[in-house]
Amino acid sequence: MEDLRSIGSQVIITNAYHLHLRPGVDLIERMGGLHHFMRWDGPLMTDSGGFQVFRFGAGREHGIGKIGPLFTDVGNRGRRANLAKGKPLVRIGEEGVEFISYLDGVHHRLTPELVVRIGAKLGSDIVLTLDECTSPLHSYQYTSEAMNRTHKWAVRSLAEFKRTSSGRQALFGIIHGGGFRNLRERSAIFMAAQAFEGYAIGGSLGSSKEQMYQVIEWIQPLLPDDKPRHLLGIGEIEDIFEIVWRGIDLFDCVLPTRMARTGTFLVKGADRFRMHILNARFKDDPCPIEERCNCYTCSNFSRAYLRHLFLTRDPLAVCLATIHNLHFMEVLMHQIRIGIGQGRFSLLRKEWLCLA
Amino acid sequence: MEDLRSIGSQVIITNAYHLHLRPGVDLIERMGGLHHFMRWDGPLMTDSGGFQVFRFGAGREHGIGKIGPLFTDVGNRGRRANLAKGKPLVRIGEEGVEFISYLDGVHHRLTPELVVRIGAKLGSDIVLTLDECTSPLHSYQYTSEAMNRTHKWAVRSLAEFKRTSSGRQALFGIIHGGGFRNLRERSAIFMAAQAFEGYAIGGSLGSSKEQMYQVIEWIQPLLPDDKPRHLLGIGEIEDIFEIVWRGIDLFDCVLPTRMARTGTFLVKGADRFRMHILNARFKDDPCPIEERCNCYTCSNFSRAYLRHLFLTRDPLAVCLATIHNLHFMEVLMHQIRIGIGQGRFSLLRKEWLCLA
Repeated sequence: MEDLRSIGSQVIITNAYHLHLRPGVDLIERMGGLHHFMRWDGPLMTDSGGFQVFRFGAGREHGIGKIGPLFTDVGNRGRRANLAKGKPLVRIGEEGVEFISYLDGVHHRLTPELVVRIGAKLGSDIVLTLDECTSPLHSYQYTSEAMNRTHKWAVRSLAEFKRTSSGRQALFGIIHGGGFRNLRERSAIFMAAQAFEGYAIGGSLGSSKEQMYQVIEWIQPLLPDDKPRHLLGIGEIEDIFEIVWRGIDLFDCVLPTRMARTGTFLVKGADRFRMHILNARFKDDPCPIEERCNCYTCSNFSRAYLRHLFLTRDPLAVCLATIHNLHFMEVLMHQIRIGIGQGRFSLLRKEWLCLA
Repeated sequence: MEDLRSIGSQVIITNAYHLHLRPGVDLIERMGGLHHFMRWDGPLMTDSGGFQVFRFGAGREHGIGKIGPLFTDVGNRGRRANLAKGKPLVRIGEEGVEFISYLDGVHHRLTPELVVRIGAKLGSDIVLTLDECTSPLHSYQYTSEAMNRTHKWAVRSLAEFKRTSSGRQALFGIIHGGGFRNLRERSAIFMAAQAFEGYAIGGSLGSSKEQMYQVIEWIQPLLPDDKPRHLLGIGEIEDIFEIVWRGIDLFDCVLPTRMARTGTFLVKGADRFRMHILNARFKDDPCPIEERCNCYTCSNFSRAYLRHLFLTRDPLAVCLATIHNLHFMEVLMHQIRIGIGQGRFSLLRKEWLCLA
């Protein structure tokens, strides 16, 4: 948390599904809430778990997305065996979602009301409602049904939120409809009519970057101007310019931290903004990752040293890479905000993306 | 390094053998020396690798000590297979040591002169000479031969040191002789007559704590009063009181950091000074590890949170545990130094060890 503060990170996003399974939301509440538990005094956002449900449900069925380890060493052998036989892990109904924990095979339920209450117990500042994610392989028919379910859940979430909210939290609705224009528009209009504090765009964004940009363009004019718009699970550096250009205010992505875990550093001007530190040419390179970067990592350590840390699997390696990559994102977003203010966002985009 | 500075750590000990294998000493020299490479501006000590040679030689043969993974994923299959068949990894001769790298099966040599030159290249402040470690299972005859070899190596190390030293480094000799009184005394007398800046006690210290204390007592009156005495690879909290009591000034041990990796925290008053955070009774414990500890970990986080981090294998877990355990050692040593100065070391020992 000290590192995040030094970097200038403003918001942390956490996950209701994961915290519900481990260590348990009641425990965190008894420990004084999530801010206190993990010592973060800035804004805290809680994703609902809709994506995790998708990952172990339709995502698994359709073979979409990387499914991580389904079993850990905490469950008993019998339960693990059940999971291994490919029994369905998720059942989606009108009431909510039933699923089997990937950790120990225990049954759990998530309902829209429960997700709101989890947000309250955690003390989250921005709560995302429960939604049903669909895959690009789902039919129009199913995507439409799932969207209608998400809409009903949104209404129930708002009702529960009004009933229980301390008044210090914000609730965001999530727009669905997959890659279908009329569904996305219906969803945007429906959600915009509900009293959410902000709107997220979730679910399948088509199967190419162009389709993703298009989905945003369909939705964008239908949302109120005075409320933030969050794109879930994006993005690459290039995507960020494209989505900000299309009016997105917030987004979240594992990219900077996941890349850090494998020794990939974000570098302006590098191919796809990536530098793989394990590459042999950095063996005796005394330069920092980025000459002009003033993050803790670049201020102190050479590429040769960072490569050595990754080769020897020193835990410090991932720590230093994470610091750099998060700092890189903060600098990028700072430049984007300044650029927008000064009316030269377009120039900035050209410069970063090396466009003519 | 920032964390170590905050904790108040004064000296770091590194290992010539490991750094020789990876990333290579010439590389570190080209990168400006070890201080600069890893950004540590305090004193730096370099252990020679005598213990590592023992670990893969006699230690392996005698089944003593934990032998870590002999192969990593960097070597080729052929080399790994050779190692796996149990071919000897180490050959000790009068000239020095030959060994096969546990990383990739490549042959290496270490001589007394080379270890001194490695220390110089690294920029180490305190260089430990190459020695031959023996096990408690070695005979009197072999232990005596090994000791004589170590003595010859010590003389050669000093000659090389005089020839090449920048004058800004110190060289420590290592006293051997296993658990045999007359050998230990001969070794202490021999080493004390050489112009070392300090003396380390190495090799087998017998097979019980009492024998270890006895070895120190044999050696202790034979060493010059004005030079530091280092006991290699010790120790447990109880041992520290016993060895300081017997005149030891310096020691090194993996205990605080190794324990941290498995979720074991050093705690005054706990059984064997250990608290295992994965124990279920800490599940919802809002207290810090030690109520009166002012380390970063105890100032910020609860036992419940630390247990959760260890359960989910969050890399932050080991980091926070290491900070606490190293801070614990610094506080202990600070109290011991003050206690000695005030003439109440004996009282302090009784208090810490809960003696009548």
